[in-house]
Amino acid sequence: MRFVFHLPLSPYCRKVRLVLAEKRLPFELRLEKTWEHRAEYLELNPAATVPTLLEDNGLAVPGSAVICEYLEEAYPDTPLIGQTLAERVEVRRLTAWFDEKFALDVTRNLNGEKYLKRLSGRGQPDAQALRAGYLNLREHIAYLGWLAETRKWLAGASISLADFAAASHLSVLDFQGDVDWSISPPAREWYARVKSRPSFRPLLADRVPGMTPPEHYADLDF
Amino acid sequence: MRFVFHLPLSPYCRKVRLVLAEKRLPFELRLEKTWEHRAEYLELNPAATVPTLLEDNGLAVPGSAVICEYLEEAYPDTPLIGQTLAERVEVRRLTAWFDEKFALDVTRNLNGEKYLKRLSGRGQPDAQALRAGYLNLREHIAYLGWLAETRKWLAGASISLADFAAASHLSVLDFQGDVDWSISPPAREWYARVKSRPSFRPLLADRVPGMTPPEHYADLDF
Repeated sequence: MRFVFHLPLSPYCRKVRLVLAEKRLPFELRLEKTWEHRAEYLELNPAATVPTLLEDNGLAVPGSAVICEYLEEAYPDTPLIGQTLAERVEVRRLTAWFDEKFALDVTRNLNGEKYLKRLSGRGQPDAQALRAGYLNLREHIAYLGWLAETRKWLAGASISLADFAAASHLSVLDFQGDVDWSISPPAREWYARVKSRPSFRPLLADRVPGMTPPEHYADLDF
Repeated sequence: MRFVFHLPLSPYCRKVRLVLAEKRLPFELRLEKTWEHRAEYLELNPAATVPTLLEDNGLAVPGSAVICEYLEEAYPDTPLIGQTLAERVEVRRLTAWFDEKFALDVTRNLNGEKYLKRLSGRGQPDAQALRAGYLNLREHIAYLGWLAETRKWLAGASISLADFAAASHLSVLDFQGDVDWSISPPAREWYARVKSRPSFRPLLADRVPGMTPPEHYADLDF
């Protein structure tokens, strides 16, 4: 069996779950409390981050970017990183945009402060970080809306890893009720399209103790 | 002509310069003061980071990870990301280890505080960050030494992107006189091997205003 060691509200884990489901590769989830630094887990992933993919043949693939490149090479049937060199640059540019820049500007400030801090017992959210996170989120949704308005999918004509990276971050924030979708109707329409894919269903069913997502979270016609 | 927009002490720019030189691809360097947010540069790289590669045919490739994947696909003759799936996982895992974990644990604390802060006029180094950086550097050099002792190159039998990522971060810290190579003779021997490659020579010739590297910095038999 193929395993994914994960945390339910990690956007990086969500991205890998979406890619596996889009490529129709079955897997089982294993909850990994990374802050416990479990010795057996450190052997699979010395950086102690989630996700880690553990293949049937024993190959451990640590880290979401490494996993997504690996899956594209090992299971090329449903390509998600584009075909031409220029397409592949744009898919990887936007994936990095969300996994690095959006993560630093928004996800770290909102999900990091509200969820991860509590989960790992590191205290209360910092008000300044929350303010910065909400402000940055508005700008990022405007950029997302512009991409959604000018292209069929974020990186071009085909759905790609860039859409799944973006939707993973946004789904985590949406779970917390942090996304004001009225800012950009094209961004909202794009998210509704990604969210209605069968690969997204298991993510929308995730629940975590002590948090209740807003009513529209799992609603496909939000 | 091919251009690389860069900053001389950015480890990510250094990694891309090494990869281009190893693949014998000629290029010209362009200094880019990212904090000035130059409009023409934002068109090439909306994230306003360095490096950005600009190809002869007009294709802009932003961000060091995207550039290195692009170069491997566009110019596969000197492969630097491994051959088998497992080799490629290990090269990418270690590249991410240095570009993400080492960067956060060490480079941000030492190069960020001592160089980037001054360069962009954001004040004096923070003493606590420096202490954490030096402490983390010792642990990272021990891990590097263990890799160098058990393998020919960091990711296995062949030199790879992982060696160039690691050496890029270390060369920036070495320029500042921050590396105590006596901690690990195998790490020192590995660095001497990478440093003596022709691709490394232009990096060792870089100088920045107001900083003088230690005597051993450009010495191949340090």
